[in-house]
Amino acid sequence: MEVQIAVAKVNKYATSESGDTLEIVERPNGGLSVVLADGQTSGRGAKAISQMVVRRVIGLLAEGVRDGAAARAASDALFTERQGKVICTLNIASVDLHSRTIVLTRNNPAPVFICRHDRIDAISDESIPLGTSRNVRPLITELAIEPGLFIAIYTDGLTHAGARRGNPMDVSSVVRSVIEDQDPSPQLLADTLLAHAVRLDENRPADDISVLILKVTPRDGDNVRRMTLRLPLDGIRA
Amino acid sequence: MEVQIAVAKVNKYATSESGDTLEIVERPNGGLSVVLADGQTSGRGAKAISQMVVRRVIGLLAEGVRDGAAARAASDALFTERQGKVICTLNIASVDLHSRTIVLTRNNPAPVFICRHDRIDAISDESIPLGTSRNVRPLITELAIEPGLFIAIYTDGLTHAGARRGNPMDVSSVVRSVIEDQDPSPQLLADTLLAHAVRLDENRPADDISVLILKVTPRDGDNVRRMTLRLPLDGIRA
Repeated sequence: MEVQIAVAKVNKYATSESGDTLEIVERPNGGLSVVLADGQTSGRGAKAISQMVVRRVIGLLAEGVRDGAAARAASDALFTERQGKVICTLNIASVDLHSRTIVLTRNNPAPVFICRHDRIDAISDESIPLGTSRNVRPLITELAIEPGLFIAIYTDGLTHAGARRGNPMDVSSVVRSVIEDQDPSPQLLADTLLAHAVRLDENRPADDISVLILKVTPRDGDNVRRMTLRLPLDGIRA
Repeated sequence: MEVQIAVAKVNKYATSESGDTLEIVERPNGGLSVVLADGQTSGRGAKAISQMVVRRVIGLLAEGVRDGAAARAASDALFTERQGKVICTLNIASVDLHSRTIVLTRNNPAPVFICRHDRIDAISDESIPLGTSRNVRPLITELAIEPGLFIAIYTDGLTHAGARRGNPMDVSSVVRSVIEDQDPSPQLLADTLLAHAVRLDENRPADDISVLILKVTPRDGDNVRRMTLRLPLDGIRA
């Protein structure tokens, strides 16, 4: 099998810094974790918050701390520093080769979509961002790694797209339309969701938007890990 | 313009952990850094060393410390901990949006290839791994971000491929053959270099191998950052 991960990420219109931070860390017992945080408001202040949260979570995961404990620690640190005045959403998606599961940790009102065999489930239980109080609990979902699994995670810029113009985003129906295709790549799903949201915002995203997709495929090829990253250089023209 | 980054990475034959660690961090003043370390020997011990070095370097870069200073700090820490008995190579490739340059930091005897307008230069000045003494200096190369730039960085598993069988790898000629193609993707160059090395090792890599490619393209499309990652699950079969 192979786990494929795709990310598509765009800044709020006319801001040079995204309040969303996404980073990846190798787990010391095998596998990796993707950590996505969205700091309150946008621009430089939000970036500092989401970077602080991601740094802390990644540092703990790298030491072997479990995902839920890392999320709680980041929340406590943020609450202590800002006394509940600044909050930050957090999603962790871990491919844990030790337990052979995918572990999803969520402190984010935005739901997570899980697709298996043409069935799409939204995990939408109430979930509170980090830094809101002393006792913030993450919601944890653990899934066996099996071919055909598709997971969609995103920051609230996606859900809020178009809302101001009275034409809100229906994430579920976009996910369904892509999943029903012939074996879509995770990048196609990430790009389609993002493009749909940007269109609803009339090409001027009202907020930072990040989309993270995981897919498990039955592919049994070489044992090469591969990564590709594309970084558009806004303002540095050819 | 757009910077594209590709990685291909394989473990030494019959080992479940790579002594090579590669991670990416966002730079606080814009841009990102890719950090690649190769710990001495292979397996779990080497992994612990390269992870420690990468963690430390990434933590410092995230705080705004310059690349060279981060490399020196990691070297001093490793030397203090292991008294010169364990060494680790390090490469940092930074896309620095503040200085509008690509900054390459090297503590690795393996050269770095830089290709511009059909010209291929090997940066092969003597460079010493981290942890060897108290005064390890990184070699720094700074390049303007310009379309057509191609950079190839790798761990010594690539250079040593085939050596034991008297059929050593000629990295330069593989780079040349790919670069002369019509606008090759960085993933194609990474995959071709890795596949060539694995073939020379008769499909049983004698060492962990990591290849990191950067490419600057004139592409002026949307402002979406994209990332794709593929993680084969050795031993977890469909």
